[in-house]
Amino acid sequence: MIQTLTVALGERSYPIYIGTGLLANPDLYRPHVRGHQAMIVTNETVAPLYLELVRAALQGLRLGVVILPDGEVYKTQEVLNRVYDALLVGRFGRDCTLIALGGGVIGDMAGFAAACYQRGVDFIQVPTTLLAQVDSSVGGKTGINHPLGKNMIGAFHQPRAVIADTLTLDTLPDRELSAGLAEVIKYGLIGDSEFFDWIESHLPLLRDRDSDALAEAIRRSCENKADVVAADERESGQRALLNFGHTFGHAIETGMGYGSCLHGEAVGVGMCMAADLSARLGWIRADDLARIRRVIAAAGLPVDPPAALSADRFVELMAVDKKVLDGRLRLVLLRGIGEAQVADDFDPALLRATLGEEGADLG
Amino acid sequence: MIQTLTVALGERSYPIYIGTGLLANPDLYRPHVRGHQAMIVTNETVAPLYLELVRAALQGLRLGVVILPDGEVYKTQEVLNRVYDALLVGRFGRDCTLIALGGGVIGDMAGFAAACYQRGVDFIQVPTTLLAQVDSSVGGKTGINHPLGKNMIGAFHQPRAVIADTLTLDTLPDRELSAGLAEVIKYGLIGDSEFFDWIESHLPLLRDRDSDALAEAIRRSCENKADVVAADERESGQRALLNFGHTFGHAIETGMGYGSCLHGEAVGVGMCMAADLSARLGWIRADDLARIRRVIAAAGLPVDPPAALSADRFVELMAVDKKVLDGRLRLVLLRGIGEAQVADDFDPALLRATLGEEGADLG
Repeated sequence: MIQTLTVALGERSYPIYIGTGLLANPDLYRPHVRGHQAMIVTNETVAPLYLELVRAALQGLRLGVVILPDGEVYKTQEVLNRVYDALLVGRFGRDCTLIALGGGVIGDMAGFAAACYQRGVDFIQVPTTLLAQVDSSVGGKTGINHPLGKNMIGAFHQPRAVIADTLTLDTLPDRELSAGLAEVIKYGLIGDSEFFDWIESHLPLLRDRDSDALAEAIRRSCENKADVVAADERESGQRALLNFGHTFGHAIETGMGYGSCLHGEAVGVGMCMAADLSARLGWIRADDLARIRRVIAAAGLPVDPPAALSADRFVELMAVDKKVLDGRLRLVLLRGIGEAQVADDFDPALLRATLGEEGADLG
Repeated sequence: MIQTLTVALGERSYPIYIGTGLLANPDLYRPHVRGHQAMIVTNETVAPLYLELVRAALQGLRLGVVILPDGEVYKTQEVLNRVYDALLVGRFGRDCTLIALGGGVIGDMAGFAAACYQRGVDFIQVPTTLLAQVDSSVGGKTGINHPLGKNMIGAFHQPRAVIADTLTLDTLPDRELSAGLAEVIKYGLIGDSEFFDWIESHLPLLRDRDSDALAEAIRRSCENKADVVAADERESGQRALLNFGHTFGHAIETGMGYGSCLHGEAVGVGMCMAADLSARLGWIRADDLARIRRVIAAAGLPVDPPAALSADRFVELMAVDKKVLDGRLRLVLLRGIGEAQVADDFDPALLRATLGEEGADLG
C-alpha cells in the first residue's frame, strides 16, 4: 500500500509517498521529472544496496550517478563541489532532476546542489534512513556545514516529491534507527501529545522494525511536519518549533566535531536539555521531564550532554546558532508535553544550570 | 535629484534609487535594513574610494567589512568562502544585511552569499560600475563561476534596494564604462528601438560621462529590466531575452579564461554575433547588422570574436550554457532592432558561419 501526503505550498506543493517497495516503482518518479535527464546523488554505503533499483526505475532518462563518501563529516563545500563537477562534466542542463538517494546528509547536499546548480533545478528526495524519512527530506531545508557552524550555508529549496520506502530501513544500523526516532519523538513533544503517547507504547515494536509501526510513525511525523512547513515555509515563526532540541544538539555536534555522534543522538540529548531547562523554569513538571528522559533513553538515545563540553563552551557554540536574533539566544522550550514555545527571556543562570555548571543541578 | 523606480515583485518588491551623491545618504539604506548588523562586501579597488562614505551612512549599525580581490577571475567558491568566514567569525545572525559595494562581481558574490548564509539573509546592492548599475544589480541573479562554466552556481535572490550613484562612474576606467554601455545597448536592441536611437545619438555624451545622459541611460535600462524581471522573475520565458549576446559572450569568457576580457566586452562581441546570425537567417537586414556593429564599436567595444576560438570550441563551450534545454541550444536573436526572439531550430550551418568557419563569411 502506498500512502500519499501532500505538502501544501501552492504551485510548489509536492507529494510524500510512504510504503514498502516504492524505490523501484517508476510511476512514483516519472510524473515529477520534467526533462529527460537525471543525476542520482548517493553515497558509498547506500549505492551497493539500492542504486540499481533506482536506476532501473529511471530507465529511459539520460542518467548520471555521483557517489559521495558517507557521513556528516563530508557535508562540506568540498564534497558538494563533486556534485557540481559531475553535473557540468556530464553537461546536465537546467531541466535536469537530481535524485537524492540516501540519508539526511545526501538529501541536504543534493538538495543544496539542486538549489544552486544553474540557479536552481528540480530534485526528488529518496530518503533511506528513518531520520531522513521523518524529517530532513520534507520541507526544503538544504545545506552544508561550515567549520564554524552546522548548516550555516544553505537554501530553502523544495523537492518535487519525497519517496519514503520503509524497506530501506531493514538495512539501517540500530544506532541510526534510534537517531531517527529522536525526530519522531520530537513531533510528539512539540505539538502532538497523543502521538507521544503512541510512540511511548510502540517503542519496542519500532525498534524491532515492525513495518506497520514504522510506516505509522513516518506518516504521523510527516503530517506534523507538512502542516508546519505549509504554514511557515521559510521559518519566520511557527517552523522554528521544529528546532526543539536542535540548538543544544548543534552545539554538541559542532563542539565534539561532526561525526563524533549522529545528528539524531545529539538531538536526543538536546531535547533532554531543553526539557530540563523547561522544568527549571517551572514550565513543565519534574515527572514530565523524567518521562521525556525515559522515552528518549528507551529509543536507544543518549540523554546527558558530553562531559567534555563545558558550560562556557556550550554558550559560545550556541551563540552562532541561526536561532540567534539581534544577538539574543532563542530556544524552543516546552510548556507541556505536546506544547512547544520559543523563549528568549529566560534567566541565564537557569540555562547555565542546564548546561551542567557546577552546584546548579536540578537534583 | 533622486529618481526612484520599483521592481514589482509583490512582497519582494524593491526600489532602485538613481542619482548623484547617493552613496553617503543614510536615508536610502536604513529603511531597508531590518536588523542591527550589516556586513559590507567590497573589493580592493572600490574600498579606498567609497568604503568610508558607505560606512558613515550606516553609522549606528554593528558593521563588518570584507574586502575581496578585484576581478571576474575571483568570482569563485574559494573567494566566496571568505565572505562566509567573515560572517561566521563576526557572529552575524540571520537578521544581518549584506551591503554589496562594487561592480557586477561583488554584487553577484555578495548576493549569492546573502542567498546562502543561514539559508538567506537580506542584501542591498550599491553598484559602482555602469554595468552593475544598468544590469547586474537589478533582478536578483546572483552566483559564482565554475571552471567549466560562467555563473553555473548561483541563486535567484532579490536585493532589498539598489542604490545607483552616478558619481561613482567618475572613477570608472574608460574600458569599464564601455563595458557597461554594452548592456545599455542591449536593452535598446531587444525591446526598445526608440531607446536604441537615443543611445546612438548620445554615445559621445555618454562616453564623456555627462551625468544627465548617464542617469537617463541608467533609468531607461533599469526600467526595461524591471519590467522584464517583474513579468518573469525566474527566467521561465521572457527574461531569457535579457541573455541576448550572452551565450556567445559567455563562451568567449570561458574559452579565453575569465579576466582576459571584460564581461561587457564579451557581450559586445556576442551581440554582434547574434545579430550576424539573425542576418544570416534573414531576420534582420544587412544594414541593420551594419548599424548595430557601428553603434557597438562607437561605444568603444570589440565587435569580432577572438581568432583563437575555433568554431568547434565555440560550439563545445555553448553546449554547457544554461540556455541549453533538453540538449538543444537556444539563442536569443533579433527580428529587428528592438525585437528579440528565442530561436532553437536554426540551421546549424548558419551558426557555424557566424562562428567564423572558413568559407562561410557573410561578406
